[in-house]
Amino acid sequence: MKGTVLYAPGDVRFEERPEPKIIKPTDAIVRISVTCVCGSDLWPYRGANPITEPTPMGHEYCGIVEEVGSAVKTVRPGQFVIGSFATSDNICPHCQYGYQSSCEHREWISTAQAPRLRVPLADGTLVATPDVPPDELLPSLLALSDVMGTGWFATDAANVKPGGTVVVVGDGAVGLLGVLSARQMGAGRIIAMSRHESRQKLAREFGATDIVAERGDEAVGRIKDLTKGIGADSVLECVGTPESMMQAISSTRAGGHIGYVGVPHGVELNGEKLFYTHVHLHGGPAPVRRFLPGLIDLVWKGKINPGKVFDLTLPLDKVAEGYRAMDERRAIKALLRP
Amino acid sequence: MKGTVLYAPGDVRFEERPEPKIIKPTDAIVRISVTCVCGSDLWPYRGANPITEPTPMGHEYCGIVEEVGSAVKTVRPGQFVIGSFATSDNICPHCQYGYQSSCEHREWISTAQAPRLRVPLADGTLVATPDVPPDELLPSLLALSDVMGTGWFATDAANVKPGGTVVVVGDGAVGLLGVLSARQMGAGRIIAMSRHESRQKLAREFGATDIVAERGDEAVGRIKDLTKGIGADSVLECVGTPESMMQAISSTRAGGHIGYVGVPHGVELNGEKLFYTHVHLHGGPAPVRRFLPGLIDLVWKGKINPGKVFDLTLPLDKVAEGYRAMDERRAIKALLRP
Repeated sequence: MKGTVLYAPGDVRFEERPEPKIIKPTDAIVRISVTCVCGSDLWPYRGANPITEPTPMGHEYCGIVEEVGSAVKTVRPGQFVIGSFATSDNICPHCQYGYQSSCEHREWISTAQAPRLRVPLADGTLVATPDVPPDELLPSLLALSDVMGTGWFATDAANVKPGGTVVVVGDGAVGLLGVLSARQMGAGRIIAMSRHESRQKLAREFGATDIVAERGDEAVGRIKDLTKGIGADSVLECVGTPESMMQAISSTRAGGHIGYVGVPHGVELNGEKLFYTHVHLHGGPAPVRRFLPGLIDLVWKGKINPGKVFDLTLPLDKVAEGYRAMDERRAIKALLRP
Repeated sequence: MKGTVLYAPGDVRFEERPEPKIIKPTDAIVRISVTCVCGSDLWPYRGANPITEPTPMGHEYCGIVEEVGSAVKTVRPGQFVIGSFATSDNICPHCQYGYQSSCEHREWISTAQAPRLRVPLADGTLVATPDVPPDELLPSLLALSDVMGTGWFATDAANVKPGGTVVVVGDGAVGLLGVLSARQMGAGRIIAMSRHESRQKLAREFGATDIVAERGDEAVGRIKDLTKGIGADSVLECVGTPESMMQAISSTRAGGHIGYVGVPHGVELNGEKLFYTHVHLHGGPAPVRRFLPGLIDLVWKGKINPGKVFDLTLPLDKVAEGYRAMDERRAIKALLRP
């Protein structure tokens, strides 16, 4: 089969790759229905992470189980499944506490921009939908594999409560789905930070009540204005740069909560400064597995439509164009059909 | 009157100072019954904070109200009161959220190692006890002004729950009272990190179930052993050095909580490393005012005896010896009687 490999910044190839096979009895092989490009794929694509060798890409997936190892008990061939980008046994203490992305046996999925995928720890990683879904649900179900689960975790980590004031830093797909998540959790006011018209529009559609287009100190000033000088109860940090993290911290009220899910790049927090802000800080790679059953239910019943973040659909062999479009911010998120 | 002034590292003087007077109508003048030296006073005493001019010292106090300004309504002359090291109006939004140490009108108390003290924002800062207390309650009531309130906040910030496993980093007075607080909150296991016999003894008396005397990686290894390799649910960081903060982070399970109250000195947190630990981080200057009424009640009823951390009592004019004894770790905490 062919799959996606990153050779160097900007150099994405779709080339011959080994067929995935069952290696351990806990594995499953999934035929991928749809996959996509993640905002975090842009870090190495842009040269922010070193690429030391040709690197297979992709960690968001859903599809039909083709084959399972001898120890797999809860999923079976023919089922439609969604899994997290982090595999989990779902029984170790970290998993039991709801932090499946810190599972003692975690592996990172990294070859999902391909037609078929080996998923380790299938029982603890994959969740089956009630039935094989109709085609129109595929984008929203795919979103649960990472981007929606991550936006949801940011909202959960930021302690969003009914009636609360929420700021979302970052207008990528995760930030936009953070807006949707905050709305679902009953936030009273949702301030999205965005300077791109199409993203502002989607943010409003997902539930944003205010848009702040300014950046830096001006943006913080605007947020203070919108919150009577106090700052927000909850702030979602969905970028991962030093600037976005500082913006998040400065936008939070004393005692407020920051949920940070943008993979930090170059972020150093000064302990003393953080101390006097009185913020709560929590984040990390989203434990998507914790949220999958509930989110599948919401999508299945038509209550949320996170798939709207996909504003570009390409055949899988055009994956390089998906990276380019996202890098140039021509697309929010590119969906790929094998 | 005479009061305490720090001139340079190691140079504490008890010298003539202006008598405090009502300056604003919201002020009160308190005749101090007992005061003390704080662990945080040792930072400048040891040269870790620059001393640019002779600096009056002291921020822990309790005593009898002598005089109040014309706008003061809730405390009156003759009452015995305790206040926080941070003044607060107790009505601004930050105060209403329980973060009185981030009050919009906050001032830092800094002249309390003296016989009399001006307390700004008296109504929002001072809490009166039910009656003038007997002498034997004074140490415990004094402790509420900072050290006990700070240990309690660390425990609250670290989300200590009944049955939970708690690690306390730091065996100073705050750490020891963190142990006491965790016990009050029903923690199942309380692991105190201490290599000093007298402090270990007090930690056990306050409720520690385990003592870890190791440091650095060895200490983290011991804690992992004691928690089945998982890490603690809650960790109290009561020191403020890079080493103690790293120890706290490494001792916490994924999804666990760190309450940090040691004023950070030289602490820089790498965003990416923090991200993958999945810890919750919360701390800052303790909002003591939030806890004062409840803690006064516990002391008044004899349910807690935080005053046990005072293992040295000196007349106020011997304040320099109090600093020396604490600096050399001959004393946990020095109580001063004007």
